[in-house]
Amino acid sequence: MGKRVDVGRVLETKEEVLAALDRFEMETPSWGYGSGGTRFHVVRQPGSARTVWERLEDAAAVHRFTGCAPRVAIHLPWDEVDDFPALAQFAEEHGVRVGAVNPNLFQRDEYALGSFTHPNASIRRKALAHVRHCVEAMAATGSNILSLWLPDGTNFPGQDNFLERKCRLEEALRETVEMLPATARLLIEYKFFEPAFYHTDIPDWGFALLLANKLGPQAQVLVDLGHHPQGTNVPYIIATLLSEGKLGGFHLNSRQYADDDLTVGSIDPYELFLIFREIVAFFRTTAGATASAPIAYMIDQTNALKPPFLAMVQAVIRAQELYAKALLVNEEALREAQHAGDLVRAEEIVREAFFTDVRPLLAEWRSRRGVPADPLAAAVAYQEKIAAGRG
Amino acid sequence: MGKRVDVGRVLETKEEVLAALDRFEMETPSWGYGSGGTRFHVVRQPGSARTVWERLEDAAAVHRFTGCAPRVAIHLPWDEVDDFPALAQFAEEHGVRVGAVNPNLFQRDEYALGSFTHPNASIRRKALAHVRHCVEAMAATGSNILSLWLPDGTNFPGQDNFLERKCRLEEALRETVEMLPATARLLIEYKFFEPAFYHTDIPDWGFALLLANKLGPQAQVLVDLGHHPQGTNVPYIIATLLSEGKLGGFHLNSRQYADDDLTVGSIDPYELFLIFREIVAFFRTTAGATASAPIAYMIDQTNALKPPFLAMVQAVIRAQELYAKALLVNEEALREAQHAGDLVRAEEIVREAFFTDVRPLLAEWRSRRGVPADPLAAAVAYQEKIAAGRG
Amino acid sequence: MGKRVDVGRVLETKEEVLAALDRFEMETPSWGYGSGGTRFHVVRQPGSARTVWERLEDAAAVHRFTGCAPRVAIHLPWDEVDDFPALAQFAEEHGVRVGAVNPNLFQRDEYALGSFTHPNASIRRKALAHVRHCVEAMAATGSNILSLWLPDGTNFPGQDNFLERKCRLEEALRETVEMLPATARLLIEYKFFEPAFYHTDIPDWGFALLLANKLGPQAQVLVDLGHHPQGTNVPYIIATLLSEGKLGGFHLNSRQYADDDLTVGSIDPYELFLIFREIVAFFRTTAGATASAPIAYMIDQTNALKPPFLAMVQAVIRAQELYAKALLVNEEALREAQHAGDLVRAEEIVREAFFTDVRPLLAEWRSRRGVPADPLAAAVAYQEKIAAGRG
Amino acid sequence: MGKRVDVGRVLETKEEVLAALDRFEMETPSWGYGSGGTRFHVVRQPGSARTVWERLEDAAAVHRFTGCAPRVAIHLPWDEVDDFPALAQFAEEHGVRVGAVNPNLFQRDEYALGSFTHPNASIRRKALAHVRHCVEAMAATGSNILSLWLPDGTNFPGQDNFLERKCRLEEALRETVEMLPATARLLIEYKFFEPAFYHTDIPDWGFALLLANKLGPQAQVLVDLGHHPQGTNVPYIIATLLSEGKLGGFHLNSRQYADDDLTVGSIDPYELFLIFREIVAFFRTTAGATASAPIAYMIDQTNALKPPFLAMVQAVIRAQELYAKALLVNEEALREAQHAGDLVRAEEIVREAFFTDVRPLLAEWRSRRGVPADPLAAAVAYQEKIAAGRG
Repeated sequence: MGKRVDVGRVLETKEEVLAALDRFEMETPSWGYGSGGTRFHVVRQPGSARTVWERLEDAAAVHRFTGCAPRVAIHLPWDEVDDFPALAQFAEEHGVRVGAVNPNLFQRDEYALGSFTHPNASIRRKALAHVRHCVEAMAATGSNILSLWLPDGTNFPGQDNFLERKCRLEEALRETVEMLPATARLLIEYKFFEPAFYHTDIPDWGFALLLANKLGPQAQVLVDLGHHPQGTNVPYIIATLLSEGKLGGFHLNSRQYADDDLTVGSIDPYELFLIFREIVAFFRTTAGATASAPIAYMIDQTNALKPPFLAMVQAVIRAQELYAKALLVNEEALREAQHAGDLVRAEEIVREAFFTDVRPLLAEWRSRRGVPADPLAAAVAYQEKIAAGRG
Repeated sequence: MGKRVDVGRVLETKEEVLAALDRFEMETPSWGYGSGGTRFHVVRQPGSARTVWERLEDAAAVHRFTGCAPRVAIHLPWDEVDDFPALAQFAEEHGVRVGAVNPNLFQRDEYALGSFTHPNASIRRKALAHVRHCVEAMAATGSNILSLWLPDGTNFPGQDNFLERKCRLEEALRETVEMLPATARLLIEYKFFEPAFYHTDIPDWGFALLLANKLGPQAQVLVDLGHHPQGTNVPYIIATLLSEGKLGGFHLNSRQYADDDLTVGSIDPYELFLIFREIVAFFRTTAGATASAPIAYMIDQTNALKPPFLAMVQAVIRAQELYAKALLVNEEALREAQHAGDLVRAEEIVREAFFTDVRPLLAEWRSRRGVPADPLAAAVAYQEKIAAGRG
Repeated sequence: MGKRVDVGRVLETKEEVLAALDRFEMETPSWGYGSGGTRFHVVRQPGSARTVWERLEDAAAVHRFTGCAPRVAIHLPWDEVDDFPALAQFAEEHGVRVGAVNPNLFQRDEYALGSFTHPNASIRRKALAHVRHCVEAMAATGSNILSLWLPDGTNFPGQDNFLERKCRLEEALRETVEMLPATARLLIEYKFFEPAFYHTDIPDWGFALLLANKLGPQAQVLVDLGHHPQGTNVPYIIATLLSEGKLGGFHLNSRQYADDDLTVGSIDPYELFLIFREIVAFFRTTAGATASAPIAYMIDQTNALKPPFLAMVQAVIRAQELYAKALLVNEEALREAQHAGDLVRAEEIVREAFFTDVRPLLAEWRSRRGVPADPLAAAVAYQEKIAAGRG
Repeated sequence: MGKRVDVGRVLETKEEVLAALDRFEMETPSWGYGSGGTRFHVVRQPGSARTVWERLEDAAAVHRFTGCAPRVAIHLPWDEVDDFPALAQFAEEHGVRVGAVNPNLFQRDEYALGSFTHPNASIRRKALAHVRHCVEAMAATGSNILSLWLPDGTNFPGQDNFLERKCRLEEALRETVEMLPATARLLIEYKFFEPAFYHTDIPDWGFALLLANKLGPQAQVLVDLGHHPQGTNVPYIIATLLSEGKLGGFHLNSRQYADDDLTVGSIDPYELFLIFREIVAFFRTTAGATASAPIAYMIDQTNALKPPFLAMVQAVIRAQELYAKALLVNEEALREAQHAGDLVRAEEIVREAFFTDVRPLLAEWRSRRGVPADPLAAAVAYQEKIAAGRG
């Protein structure tokens, strides 16, 4: 507590920026390649992937076109297969690897009143059995992240006892961490509301951090950008979690209202840039330089109206573009303006990076990586192919 | 504009209050008797109605147990039948009538980009054809309310042209009103967001009122209690619509966050009481006494976790209880305190009515109506029967 | 109702864009040159203007440095002078003109329970007398806009009668419009909440539009960007008001939470760009081309932490920059993508304009107008002078 | 972590309930007896206290009329006196004691960019010196609570470095805790926003808890009911803090929108009842029974429109009334319904307590305590006296 923060360095040369871009890798979600929707309707989009194999093919194509999405997150039982090593090998042959494994604790009637927090111990045991299966799938696929989202909560005042639920939750999470091999991490996701509409058992970053601190170094917090109350300053949450060594990863997406799960960067691109800027700045400090685990940048968007594959490519190149802008903030000049109390200059320094045209930089990066100069154009051609081929 | 508001009378005798309760009738929704849920999962609840006939039976049972829910709203095509007059007769034989008819413009892929506002005229024509079918069903069932909720909106900046959409919307609504017989009303529902997540074509009461004013006396506004931004003062919207002669009806439910569709009165019962108080006060004024059309009190709640039938009885008796409390506000004393600028007394007068125990009053009312003294107990017995019988 | 929207033209040459920029003129507020703050504290900022003359000098300097802020809004009694024609002449000698006149109906104890809506008629008459004085000041200064913000509302359920308040409000507004010369406009501002915390008498655009429609062609709606519930799609409100011929003007500022009154463009620049895009697109249509009154772009920001003059220059150049980007949207290509249902392309077209570097364009514009190439640098020098000179 | 929660007992006799009411004591704030307002205007209310002595007299009168407000919180420098022991003695002679001491770190220009988090170490030292003075005042007045609210935050992206601010904050808080005698507690208040409008350094319960956990057993969290994002489930936060042993106290008030500081219980009384219910239930468990420090129930409301003294009495009797209702929840029956998954019954049990008429119970309690049967009537008489006497 209370240790000093040293000054972050400015990336001085284009080479340094390009090298920093090399280190920014994303993970796309297998479930983001199928048709998405709302509680009212799911629109069948042309070219939607129908099997886990098609989902992996699409994820591989995204990486082939963008060069910065080398992993794919899977979701069980949606991506359940008999032979997980074969799945991992299929992925590798297509140029990607399996990323986070996501248990599903919300699609059975028995979880209606909770999974890890259910009043009935036998349901909690079932939930933990499923999680154990996911941990086994991690070992079989080479994944080292268990990405846990609990839908648990209540819909009505008095429905259940908050104190008891917290005890049940902590017990189940402790068991979960104990299942993990030493090299794996548990990422705990929080969410303000939905599908529970009165209270949610892990409603915010503070609750998730409280749990992660109790669970030890293998547990970290996962930040889904759509899971906050309106107005929440998300960059500040990011900085706080970084300083506590507990920022495990992201579910990237956009929102105007609630957990809208819109395409990354579509609503308020400045906010996402500011989030990336906190991370970039942190990793230039001494504390950041010695941080052990990398941040898992995972995309999590639903596509009710766009072809999912196209939207995924759009998401990846936008995130990369905004990250590139964040790399350009002159942190030394900024620190100087901050210490001088010069708010106008400080703000202008940040905005200047945001409005810098990074297209030439990204063109150079793509050229060196041997990926298409216009990933979206390549994606449109692929989309036409799958739209035709998948009926 | 600017006409004076006269003082509302106090209901002086118990008889007057009981008579006022007689006039408070609700409508339950056929779709509220089936299993509900979220985009993540729909829980199959025991005893959920499986056919339109079971839904009508349940609605009739609600009325039998409560005495104040004599109508049932239907939703097409969910309640589609070959012979609508037979449906109406079935309802009548069970002691209820068909209330509002609700078109469904959100469950087909072709409506993904809009129904009344779709860029493609042929889709708009299909939507209007469905609405015409609903108007025919109204005639065949004796319904005089077309209750219209449009899911229309966009998910991304630039997705469509706002000005064009408004033109299309106004045209389709004009056609809709022209379909109606002279005795029927069109209720226009608004919603802040969902299923569209960037903009919604009819997002708030002001837009709905603007449309209703253009469409003439047959068009009014429908207020769903869950369709407002957080913090919105709904009682004030109610008073405003009343003063403009455009409050057509309600979708009653509760919310903590967004359009949560929780059981009526479960989250903030004081707010619902204050809403009813505005109505009660208005109808005691001269303007209110001459208002032509009654307000349609329709329940619209989803029940992911409760047996739907039980939750409906709970909703009906709570709404009646809060309405009874609203009848007890001493409007004369209140007006006096208001004109004296005595805020403390004014507030206490309102709160006193809210915290008055109305159970004796309701017991008397139920006894006179010949309905069970404890409607919820009667409902539990019925619920056990349908849970067993419907498998 | 229902007339067709024609396709907007693309600005084909740089000359067209520069000419469009010429027509984008802002108005800065005299009250924005003094120290601002919160209910907790007002920080005395160096160089804050102390008199109406200093405020006009600062406004003139903003225009001198930016070339696009030729008017200054005044606020009575804050800018009260004995000789208004002399004030107008002073302004003109410094290169600016008096813009909107803003009555103050919130800084007297007698307005605690309302101004136009106060239960006591004598208070309402006082409020109207002050408004009449403002209308006289308009005549004396050459202003043709009365910009009206009412703080009216209540803090507690039951405090006052909503129906009566609406009647009082409509009466007072009718009297206000009758005071105006035929060439003047009344702009009606709305606000979600504050300083009233239970209900606000004009809480949203819909209520303001309802009033403006009743009051006739001289009344229009004023949109303050900080006066909406979180999540509100403001660009859609703008398009709606434009299509109704009732968008009178703006109070430009930024917000993260409530009515934060932060520097224009500092929180979500994409949103302001999208607002401008609606306007630019509208004025390219036939309906827009024949719109009678120009939109009054007024800045309204408080500066608790920045020197107010600097923040004002920052605001003006940011607004101009975002407006310039809005001019670059390829509306024809956008319309095509929209009609084809190509959401990905439509969105990319809009984003491309937003991320276009308009600095060369603005440099050219400034050079032609003879204003400094770097207005902010010029402003810093001026700021140092007033900070030293005003003690 | 993970210890079992035992079943809370039902209060079986009226005597038990009356005894539980005896233990519910509130603290009124000295600053709540003066005129309050908004950033737009402060209304001078009749009878507003003008000196610290009048404020203590009013607080004493509140306790005399209600019997449950025996302490008064003070705020420095607002309540600064030369002789704090004399202040304490004056209070005691009037029947009350000094409660929490509240430092003021927001009313000096030098705190514009922060107090504990200010970039400049000399400002941080000044802030700490003021806090030390407050700790001395605690010793001199017999107070054992330091109630700390920091206004610290930023208004613009880039204004200051989040990581550095967190370090400064933690250092200053550690120094603060070290100042305290072993029997005293530090209560850390959090706030979503205002007066800072981009980020707030202690924005939510999670951040406050993180700090309190680092600072050790003397540090706890203070919950102001108006300091949360809309929709936040506050009862769940209460339960969480209780289970962590870190719920230090409350600032009780009401809100419709932001930090509105309205009279306790005026907007959503059901929510406050549910908050109290969590506490009542917790203290019936084994963990609760052994909790060391009592919860400090402090009122913190602003009165722009009501005479402050009257509003304070209103607040105290409402809070007591809602607490009494919370005591009546049949926790055993509730637990049973919860474990049976009977949501309808569980909810009805909670609602039944809320709608129980507790006036007879409170009449009995007041009679035994020798306080007026109608505290508000007594307050009106006192209010008339001070309104006349204080000019």
